[in-house]
Amino acid sequence: MHRSDHSVRRRFSALRCSLYSGLVVPISEKALISRIRRASIRHSGVALGIGDDCAILRLPAGHEILVTTDFNLEGIHFRREWHPPAPVGHRCLTRGLSDIAAMGGEPIAAFLSLAAPANLPQTWIGNFTHGLLALAENFKITLAGGDTAESPAGILVDIVVVGSVPRGKAVLRSGAKPGDRVYVTGDLGGSAAALGELRAGEKSRPADYPRHFFPIPRVAVGRALRERGLASAMIDVSDGLSTDLAHICEESGVGAEILAPAIPRAFVGRKRKVVDLFHALHGGEDYELLFTAPPGRRVPNRIADVAITFIGNVIRDQHVTLISETGRRHKLRPQGWEHFRR
Amino acid sequence: MHRSDHSVRRRFSALRCSLYSGLVVPISEKALISRIRRASIRHSGVALGIGDDCAILRLPAGHEILVTTDFNLEGIHFRREWHPPAPVGHRCLTRGLSDIAAMGGEPIAAFLSLAAPANLPQTWIGNFTHGLLALAENFKITLAGGDTAESPAGILVDIVVVGSVPRGKAVLRSGAKPGDRVYVTGDLGGSAAALGELRAGEKSRPADYPRHFFPIPRVAVGRALRERGLASAMIDVSDGLSTDLAHICEESGVGAEILAPAIPRAFVGRKRKVVDLFHALHGGEDYELLFTAPPGRRVPNRIADVAITFIGNVIRDQHVTLISETGRRHKLRPQGWEHFRR
Repeated sequence: MHRSDHSVRRRFSALRCSLYSGLVVPISEKALISRIRRASIRHSGVALGIGDDCAILRLPAGHEILVTTDFNLEGIHFRREWHPPAPVGHRCLTRGLSDIAAMGGEPIAAFLSLAAPANLPQTWIGNFTHGLLALAENFKITLAGGDTAESPAGILVDIVVVGSVPRGKAVLRSGAKPGDRVYVTGDLGGSAAALGELRAGEKSRPADYPRHFFPIPRVAVGRALRERGLASAMIDVSDGLSTDLAHICEESGVGAEILAPAIPRAFVGRKRKVVDLFHALHGGEDYELLFTAPPGRRVPNRIADVAITFIGNVIRDQHVTLISETGRRHKLRPQGWEHFRR
Repeated sequence: MHRSDHSVRRRFSALRCSLYSGLVVPISEKALISRIRRASIRHSGVALGIGDDCAILRLPAGHEILVTTDFNLEGIHFRREWHPPAPVGHRCLTRGLSDIAAMGGEPIAAFLSLAAPANLPQTWIGNFTHGLLALAENFKITLAGGDTAESPAGILVDIVVVGSVPRGKAVLRSGAKPGDRVYVTGDLGGSAAALGELRAGEKSRPADYPRHFFPIPRVAVGRALRERGLASAMIDVSDGLSTDLAHICEESGVGAEILAPAIPRAFVGRKRKVVDLFHALHGGEDYELLFTAPPGRRVPNRIADVAITFIGNVIRDQHVTLISETGRRHKLRPQGWEHFRR
């Protein structure tokens, strides 16, 4: 192809020793590779990582494979002027891990496809990778491969996470039944609140908005819910409660009644102000788990040190209704990201 | 985030019924979804495809998982003015399938992450998907998930292919031993020759350059070589013979002597002209298999209707030498894509 074709293409899986070397400012390339390789030997499920045409993964006996893939594109999913590189790396991987959590699964390995523009400072890539690998190490998963390329414009990331779950035991979106109760982990709206600040031109310190800059995926909670057979349906809150609840209802052929005062709202900013209901209902990227449980099951208030809150009930009628403090009923339409941000 | 954030994000895994709806020209969206879903029920290894937080795949007993991921970016890996959309879709998937072939594996499922600029004609996406799915159907694999987004610039594709291989039986790059013989499938240089034409401003008809526009990955050959225990090391020729042979030599800690006259060269163009040696040595994207076999093993001339050609020998000395027709010896340096195209 033309001059730039493949000139910067470096495939992790192909070039064990020249990872990232094609990127324009490869000064600390060796440190980067060394860091990736250190992170690349952790999970016993990875038989072969970076360095061949494919990675080879192994499953525990009687398990199935979970696969999820997520784009993270500059200008679409993050902004360089708003998001420092380490949070961008962290958030990329959180998206994938959160999908594994929502099935009740166990993550094994991640694959990073990264295209960077020629003029991207090398420190950006270093800090991005640092943020991603720190989270990978926390969850003891391997960065087992990927691809790199020169980007025609902006930073382009695609993250794949592969995990496992005992055969037939994954918690799907489609298992909710009328009479089930609806729960959510942690609290909601904190990530959207940070975006609100950023959009208003305010400085948002990562320490004041941890759920936006360094969200921890709820893998342990998801696994516990699956192991204890508590969740009949589950999804992660990536698009906003109203949208993600609609997905469960649609897939399960049910509706729900949600009690507005019961929704746990995040406290954010330096003054720990509670977010408004609109953010909690429609803000996305909280990466909490939204699940339903059969009425007979006792769901604890905390699992793996994360609060679990009852917020409503599954009903037969296929609509979602929001019940206010005064008992007024409103139809709750999905207003996740797409609408929320207009 | 800002207005466009997530407004076009559509996750296959999340939105079973609104796939692609966010893309700007969604006229035949339903036809597209219907086509993807038809292709999405083929492989018995896919327990759950599009429509949840993750896809769920199953392995045959005693097998391991193969994972490969490849970027395909407009302006880097393809050009819209050179490559019609169906070949772009076909070539994207071939890259992944060819990696599975190079391990001797069996593909199960593909995951497509596609970001398109807002002004991309809808027919482009339709034809791209058609090209990709036609190949997926040929290989009886499922398009089991992915992600879509609005692209800030250009068409961005990342393809993941997941496959399986009997435990411990994958053919690695690292197994070549001094005394082994070197073989290649099919013929080489045909894809690079098409690029040469395109760069010179010539029209290249896909029918005249099938290996460039519609390369068929050598999955059956790779599997047969693994099953018969013939290949000691294997790689697919994606970066060019000189570069990919260097990868095998590096990973195996060996060298090789290649007989220039033995290299099978492609016949291309309307007049079926043979490509020159330079293209055959250094041109990439032929997606043939390059492998080594122990000296005692009889390697057939054809496997799965594809020619197998002996081209040289593995040696202890860690250099690659090219021996010309007259017996002259040259050092063969990796001159795949990067250098080839400058």
